[in-house]
Amino acid sequence: MTARIFNFSAGPAVLPVEVLEEARENLLSLGSTGIGIMEHSHRGKAYDAVHMECEALCRELAGIPENYKILFIQGGASLQFGMIPMNLLSAGKTADFLMTGAWSEKAASEAKLYGNVHHAASSKDQNYSYIPQTASYSDSPAYVHFTSNNTIFGTEWKGEPAGYPGNMLICDASSDIYSRPIDVSKYALIYAGAQKNLGPSGVTLVIVRDDVVEMGPKNIPAMLQYRTYAADHSLYNTPPTFGIYIMGLVFKWIKKNGGLAGMAQHNEAKAGKLYDWLDQSKLFKATAARDSRSLMNVTFVTGDAKLDDEFIALSKKAGLDGLKGHRSVGGMRASIYNAFPPAGIDKLLEVMADFEKAHTK
Amino acid sequence: MTARIFNFSAGPAVLPVEVLEEARENLLSLGSTGIGIMEHSHRGKAYDAVHMECEALCRELAGIPENYKILFIQGGASLQFGMIPMNLLSAGKTADFLMTGAWSEKAASEAKLYGNVHHAASSKDQNYSYIPQTASYSDSPAYVHFTSNNTIFGTEWKGEPAGYPGNMLICDASSDIYSRPIDVSKYALIYAGAQKNLGPSGVTLVIVRDDVVEMGPKNIPAMLQYRTYAADHSLYNTPPTFGIYIMGLVFKWIKKNGGLAGMAQHNEAKAGKLYDWLDQSKLFKATAARDSRSLMNVTFVTGDAKLDDEFIALSKKAGLDGLKGHRSVGGMRASIYNAFPPAGIDKLLEVMADFEKAHTK
Repeated sequence: MTARIFNFSAGPAVLPVEVLEEARENLLSLGSTGIGIMEHSHRGKAYDAVHMECEALCRELAGIPENYKILFIQGGASLQFGMIPMNLLSAGKTADFLMTGAWSEKAASEAKLYGNVHHAASSKDQNYSYIPQTASYSDSPAYVHFTSNNTIFGTEWKGEPAGYPGNMLICDASSDIYSRPIDVSKYALIYAGAQKNLGPSGVTLVIVRDDVVEMGPKNIPAMLQYRTYAADHSLYNTPPTFGIYIMGLVFKWIKKNGGLAGMAQHNEAKAGKLYDWLDQSKLFKATAARDSRSLMNVTFVTGDAKLDDEFIALSKKAGLDGLKGHRSVGGMRASIYNAFPPAGIDKLLEVMADFEKAHTK
Repeated sequence: MTARIFNFSAGPAVLPVEVLEEARENLLSLGSTGIGIMEHSHRGKAYDAVHMECEALCRELAGIPENYKILFIQGGASLQFGMIPMNLLSAGKTADFLMTGAWSEKAASEAKLYGNVHHAASSKDQNYSYIPQTASYSDSPAYVHFTSNNTIFGTEWKGEPAGYPGNMLICDASSDIYSRPIDVSKYALIYAGAQKNLGPSGVTLVIVRDDVVEMGPKNIPAMLQYRTYAADHSLYNTPPTFGIYIMGLVFKWIKKNGGLAGMAQHNEAKAGKLYDWLDQSKLFKATAARDSRSLMNVTFVTGDAKLDDEFIALSKKAGLDGLKGHRSVGGMRASIYNAFPPAGIDKLLEVMADFEKAHTK
């Protein structure tokens, strides 16, 4: 078998080796069923157990209150950008957005199809390199939307935005979901594409309060109504069974590794080590404002685009993949989600140290 | 490793063993990349090759003309039930539906949200046990929709409906796609959830003519516009990469096994053997009209519900899973898609023969 390398991809991203090994064992036969996990009917007992265990672990890990439903939807966060306003916004009403990057922009842009959009705060003035500390909300917005972690710009909210009006807080948590404890009771709806912290692409986790499920219109396609999923444990039609299976294995792995508190500790240690090194470096520099730094995506530059490219090429040779930053920021981005191993941080520091030595006097 | 049993599930369904074995080899490292197939960035070279090969094989197998796009969408056929009229129907216009079962009903019901629906033909009068031979179309319908194979009722169109008006033929081919050659040039749009003949659940194949891509409105969410997928090889957002990978492996397997003509021959032999046996049986009886029989889902009964249950229990013990028919028809259903092995038919005939012997004088 080929040795695994360190995968800093922003998503789809590295998964725990144990999860991959267990999936491998069940591809031709799920346990002793004689039928592979992908081949089981979604109406059969074997898959039902997988599905319900995934949902139960999801609830247990974050302590999701009983008045919230856990939904498995397809289409990624991108479909949620449209589905949320389709259900929760209408002509004449206003949704407030806290603008912290490209994903906030896409979400806000889709909301405009259904109602008014108010930018309650934005860090666009400094290329989204920080999380705004204050916001100016509209009067009784239909909802307040924020992006908890910004993969491209390497910034992350440390908690919920302060002082938002009402009880309709909505969060795109695609890139930091279950990387730390979360108080679900503060939210109306949380959504996350699975492909960063939870599993493969093709499943979107939506955690939604019961009253919000029923707010949407009924004269839209069934697959675009939250109630369709809420009514039947997301089994109205054939769900993405394999993705849900993997997500369940990831939840087990999280539980075994200390739950969400364990993940937070582990992520703080990994990112902390990397930021500490960057802060003392004479060559490399973190791009995000210090109080807004993401524990999931660490963005950094040398300040010289050619030198950045040289470093990326060198790191690739050293077995570090996916370090090229997004074109909006340039430089490097180390995506170090839950499953990214600490040894990969050590290796990165080693390669950076060597590079720095060779390029500074 | 547990021995595999014969899986007659209607979907998700049996996949070729070779495909599962190859997937298993690539879970922890896709080829020599050191990164598992699920963990590769959808923007990287390794996944791009997988994606483009899947699309190219899809085109090659059915000889899809150049003026058609191949799209990979999420949400199953159920999302297409809504997405098609959202794009192609509007108030005052009429869509014609050929009603051949529960899936036609669901598709027609979603179309009513956007315009008028005309049932051009229906076999509901005889519990959908046949394919209508004639139809009465409306004047210049926006499109004509049919379901090429009806999983629940065990019926299948032998080709396109005769004499439909215009050039806007739309087909839900979820349960017989790529089971036989298809002349794509006759269609405006063909869609199919992957989980019967093509791969795992979570990917929907949509084959659409270029002019149809551009017919839809632009003031709907990006993920619900065909042009969003058509513009960028379905890479606008993160696609369900693992499902597309498996679909590509299935396409390779189809190619190796004679292409679509090979599949047709293979499926006619399997289903033919089963229907021939049923036609001579003194106990079991096929439920679909002879000229409408599906090669994918063979529905049959003893005529005695208790005896049916007894047979299903016995067959399960003999290693035949998923034979229970849908409650709308009762009795048994043998779903025998492309990847279902001929040996499973032999085993079923053996179990049926024994059962018949024990239950007839």
